[in-house]
Amino acid sequence: MKNRKVKVGIVGLGRLGYRHAENMAFRVPHCELLAVCSVVEEEVKEAQEKWGIPYGYTDYDKMLENRELEAIFIASPSRFHCEQIEKALEAGFHVFSEKPLGLYLEEVEKVEKAVSRHSDKVFMLGFMRRYDPSYAEVKRRIDSGEIGEPVLIRCYGLDPAGKLDSFLRFARDNYSGGLFLDMAIHDLDLARWYLQAEAEEVWAIGGSYAYREFAELGDAETGAAMVRFAGNRIGIFVAGRNCVHGYHIETEIIGTKGTLRIGTVPERNHVMLFNEKGAIKKCFEGFLERFEQAYLKEAEEFITCILENRKPSVSVRDGVESTRLGYACKESFETGRLVRIKS
Amino acid sequence: MKNRKVKVGIVGLGRLGYRHAENMAFRVPHCELLAVCSVVEEEVKEAQEKWGIPYGYTDYDKMLENRELEAIFIASPSRFHCEQIEKALEAGFHVFSEKPLGLYLEEVEKVEKAVSRHSDKVFMLGFMRRYDPSYAEVKRRIDSGEIGEPVLIRCYGLDPAGKLDSFLRFARDNYSGGLFLDMAIHDLDLARWYLQAEAEEVWAIGGSYAYREFAELGDAETGAAMVRFAGNRIGIFVAGRNCVHGYHIETEIIGTKGTLRIGTVPERNHVMLFNEKGAIKKCFEGFLERFEQAYLKEAEEFITCILENRKPSVSVRDGVESTRLGYACKESFETGRLVRIKS
Amino acid sequence: MKNRKVKVGIVGLGRLGYRHAENMAFRVPHCELLAVCSVVEEEVKEAQEKWGIPYGYTDYDKMLENRELEAIFIASPSRFHCEQIEKALEAGFHVFSEKPLGLYLEEVEKVEKAVSRHSDKVFMLGFMRRYDPSYAEVKRRIDSGEIGEPVLIRCYGLDPAGKLDSFLRFARDNYSGGLFLDMAIHDLDLARWYLQAEAEEVWAIGGSYAYREFAELGDAETGAAMVRFAGNRIGIFVAGRNCVHGYHIETEIIGTKGTLRIGTVPERNHVMLFNEKGAIKKCFEGFLERFEQAYLKEAEEFITCILENRKPSVSVRDGVESTRLGYACKESFETGRLVRIKS
Amino acid sequence: MKNRKVKVGIVGLGRLGYRHAENMAFRVPHCELLAVCSVVEEEVKEAQEKWGIPYGYTDYDKMLENRELEAIFIASPSRFHCEQIEKALEAGFHVFSEKPLGLYLEEVEKVEKAVSRHSDKVFMLGFMRRYDPSYAEVKRRIDSGEIGEPVLIRCYGLDPAGKLDSFLRFARDNYSGGLFLDMAIHDLDLARWYLQAEAEEVWAIGGSYAYREFAELGDAETGAAMVRFAGNRIGIFVAGRNCVHGYHIETEIIGTKGTLRIGTVPERNHVMLFNEKGAIKKCFEGFLERFEQAYLKEAEEFITCILENRKPSVSVRDGVESTRLGYACKESFETGRLVRIKS
Repeated sequence: MKNRKVKVGIVGLGRLGYRHAENMAFRVPHCELLAVCSVVEEEVKEAQEKWGIPYGYTDYDKMLENRELEAIFIASPSRFHCEQIEKALEAGFHVFSEKPLGLYLEEVEKVEKAVSRHSDKVFMLGFMRRYDPSYAEVKRRIDSGEIGEPVLIRCYGLDPAGKLDSFLRFARDNYSGGLFLDMAIHDLDLARWYLQAEAEEVWAIGGSYAYREFAELGDAETGAAMVRFAGNRIGIFVAGRNCVHGYHIETEIIGTKGTLRIGTVPERNHVMLFNEKGAIKKCFEGFLERFEQAYLKEAEEFITCILENRKPSVSVRDGVESTRLGYACKESFETGRLVRIKS
Repeated sequence: MKNRKVKVGIVGLGRLGYRHAENMAFRVPHCELLAVCSVVEEEVKEAQEKWGIPYGYTDYDKMLENRELEAIFIASPSRFHCEQIEKALEAGFHVFSEKPLGLYLEEVEKVEKAVSRHSDKVFMLGFMRRYDPSYAEVKRRIDSGEIGEPVLIRCYGLDPAGKLDSFLRFARDNYSGGLFLDMAIHDLDLARWYLQAEAEEVWAIGGSYAYREFAELGDAETGAAMVRFAGNRIGIFVAGRNCVHGYHIETEIIGTKGTLRIGTVPERNHVMLFNEKGAIKKCFEGFLERFEQAYLKEAEEFITCILENRKPSVSVRDGVESTRLGYACKESFETGRLVRIKS
Repeated sequence: MKNRKVKVGIVGLGRLGYRHAENMAFRVPHCELLAVCSVVEEEVKEAQEKWGIPYGYTDYDKMLENRELEAIFIASPSRFHCEQIEKALEAGFHVFSEKPLGLYLEEVEKVEKAVSRHSDKVFMLGFMRRYDPSYAEVKRRIDSGEIGEPVLIRCYGLDPAGKLDSFLRFARDNYSGGLFLDMAIHDLDLARWYLQAEAEEVWAIGGSYAYREFAELGDAETGAAMVRFAGNRIGIFVAGRNCVHGYHIETEIIGTKGTLRIGTVPERNHVMLFNEKGAIKKCFEGFLERFEQAYLKEAEEFITCILENRKPSVSVRDGVESTRLGYACKESFETGRLVRIKS
Repeated sequence: MKNRKVKVGIVGLGRLGYRHAENMAFRVPHCELLAVCSVVEEEVKEAQEKWGIPYGYTDYDKMLENRELEAIFIASPSRFHCEQIEKALEAGFHVFSEKPLGLYLEEVEKVEKAVSRHSDKVFMLGFMRRYDPSYAEVKRRIDSGEIGEPVLIRCYGLDPAGKLDSFLRFARDNYSGGLFLDMAIHDLDLARWYLQAEAEEVWAIGGSYAYREFAELGDAETGAAMVRFAGNRIGIFVAGRNCVHGYHIETEIIGTKGTLRIGTVPERNHVMLFNEKGAIKKCFEGFLERFEQAYLKEAEEFITCILENRKPSVSVRDGVESTRLGYACKESFETGRLVRIKS
């Protein structure tokens, strides 16, 4: 591939968008970040100056007119994903979109069709955990039969309590989809990926324990969903926004011949302190720290797929099905009823 | 208390009964094992000879006629518990019974009344985990407010695959209550104890994955129940009989200000091996090994309660309520429906 | 063995002696604690009353005149061990002595001869770690060849900082032997046991870092000794009295085909706390907690050896050789020189 | 800094050199790999073609004539380091050199003078561990006083047994400096860095246990050095080439108020397997895997120092002093004597 570089424009320069942009500007091989776009003009200017990016936009449609670009990287707020994906595909670009695919079932089903129409383009969805070295290794080990048949998957997705205030401020004015669609969506995708089975039934419960604001928003501070997958496989999903010790992403797959766990203790590095409190390991502070490598690797995979003209393992269908399951969790939580998932 | 010794007769000399008997013969302070009883005559003879126990019985009623005894320790098969408890109380003895209190809701409600009628006697139920140093410490720490309000409890009770064959042989002819009443009952008790709340609703699923025999028995090899407790507190219970790595008892309580976990890795001792496979910790082989101290301490507590004329913290009510919840799990698993628990 | 009980008299009712006495009064099968002896009269009275012990002495020689006794258990201060062992043997008793065998090489070599003269009696030395389940398992695994040939042993023996003040008060008036003879002696014994080799050369260093009092006593707060054992096997010993996180006993044996570690993190039980500081495991507070089981099992082994008329695996020679090595460490620390050990 | 890029030429394209080159070609911000140099022509060609590098050399002196370059990155065999560093400095380049600084005390002292003469140039030595997130965090925490005064440092540097054969083949024809200069040098540097003290005395022992070839080479398969640092601080260094479980780099610093450990279990990622053998964590396979981030960060730091015209924290003096200490270890191992270090 030598020095061939894929020219990319990114939309969205928030916390995660900024990281993606920085990665593509400097750390992703064979990638050249040529354009940045954000409705916040200062973000655009800062990025252009700091990293020497030639093109800057505050209007997404204008960026799509730039014919030097080959690929569009979408890291804007969730409610724009579907529209921006479709526009970019129609304009002839390869597209990477951050998760979630969309906020409503109707729009994700619509965007799935758009992706189908442009099957010559690479479309990739940002389920970055699949590219984390630990998650990827577990996939290989399950597929190799190391734990026999997967029977049960348990997933924790707990956001740090430290970010709770800013989340609540944001959530008052922005529909995020709620705990299950916003937080648990990664885990719902992982469950489907590891179990190779679709969900059939779900019951979800939860509540507001320390922060009544969640109840007022119709959301849950901490919640749990139990899912019956095809073949009576069991899925247990715990999601929360008040994790005192940090960012806790834990996954376990129990098989007929063994069990694999990822992140049982979310230790951020190899350091242990001993003092009068005991033996202490610090935990991850947030997703940017925990999934630093995964964010890089998924961007590398996107670029490599374009260069090698092949499809990534995360498909638009994964986005649709995880959204469908997320909606079933949400419905169950809201109604208190067992919900059957139609596929 | 000096040298005052409580004279005890035990019924049941199976694996666990034998351990209890040995403990009381030699390791429980202020306790004298005066009589052993089993329908298997060789067990009685062996125990008498090996430990020098003066009285041996193959007939439980006969043992109850021995007026030298003060207390009866019941470690017989589950289906005899209720009847034997009631008889012993009626005959004027203090009574310890192994879990479960009974196999049917009707009988446990009946035995609860018997215990009430004999409130001058010590009655204790063998929920030994409450006496394990780790479980006891966690209770103290929750009660001290260390993790704020408990929000979610997750319990794993997984029996070693190595004992699966003998279990299946046994289960064909003996009704054990099934996975939730037999295995999960300890965890249901712990959840009530830690959360200080009663269950309101449950959904339970499961299946037979490696061993079809469980399906034929109408039971599950591995199962999970999600329980909504009062105040929307969340209970997650996983029970299984095919745990390849050994005996896995794990409990987690997530609170509004912290989380406590017990037995995340069921490591049997302080040894770690490093070899070409990696860093390896062996796991517990079974309940006698994992709860060695707890079995001793609960017997000590029983004897001390008698000597000090006070009640243990495990009451007959704990037996009734955990059975009620176990039955709800079982009903949900069998019908596939969400089950509401009437209290 | 039925109900045959070995009748024991104990001398020394300090912290450890009290625990031994309580164990023998109640928890050691086939053992009857018939006599207690201490120069502190209240200790004798308290033990007699609390546990109903028939005989009490403030004079050791008087206890040796009690012909009902069969065995003497020595838990007095270290400086009395040798004399009391010899007297008890001469008086015809089986003898258990707490470590160290003695404080001076001359006296331990003399007592070794006394033990030889009374080879019909059981003599056992309180190197209790050999009876800890983890240490015992590692011995079996090394002997089975699991890690090939042992190449290096590393031992940490660190006393909790919390007991430092009381130690310093005690040490001003009582010669304990110093850090290497008092603290490291267990590890020196373990190294010989695991490596099956004798020490040939040692260099020891150390200092007073937080507490100058150690320097004033001619002792070290924390010290390290590196020992060359026969066959160029390597021994690394770290001993200290200022361990902030508790009682830290850690042992590692590196072999040609694997490595075994004991107590890498001295976690006191199966509980883990997660809070804003991270994931926290409490550590052992002291030797009574860490070696609770080992103290019981060594007493059981002593009684069983008497009943079965056989010798324990810890011999008087182990006491002599570990003292010899301890003295070499001490000499090296005091002179700063490499010390050759003559055997 | 915008798009300003430092133009670099690298010499040495072995396993580590290849990684460095790849990093600088694609992953190090503000860095442009303009030239590659190796005596192995195919390596040069492959790198040029694969990554599109404009200049390729088999003659180091020729590369130094390329005036487009600003910096030289030295990853050649250890015996060339000193000469190549001096030549590059004389030719006016910034210089990064892989560790060790050199193989002989005389040459490292000479190169130290060369670096002094060119104080306007950035010179950096590849003690990459200082840039590993865990090691860097521990430095900050020690400096913040979290563990009080450092008292003892223990370092393990164990190479995987899997690479032993290739090492032995290589070592027969190439003087590597031996176990202490080649393997332990990183740890000697870390000890000086963390303790902020120089070594005064050392005793080193070791042997050939599984592979007699080491003895034939006058080297050790596994060895240990105990070092007395200024202020009686204690250093314990274990180095080896036969680590069955992988690449084991572990460091512990005991302070007067706490202890910090890095890499107690060298677990390669967040995955744990449970099977019939127990709970298993895989270990790191080698240095490229363990220090992937550190290699990147040190290169980033080199480039940033050039751009910001400042010096890195690793100085040429660190190279000289660690070599001096390494030689003292070697001398002690070879003579069996305690060696005093003159500074």
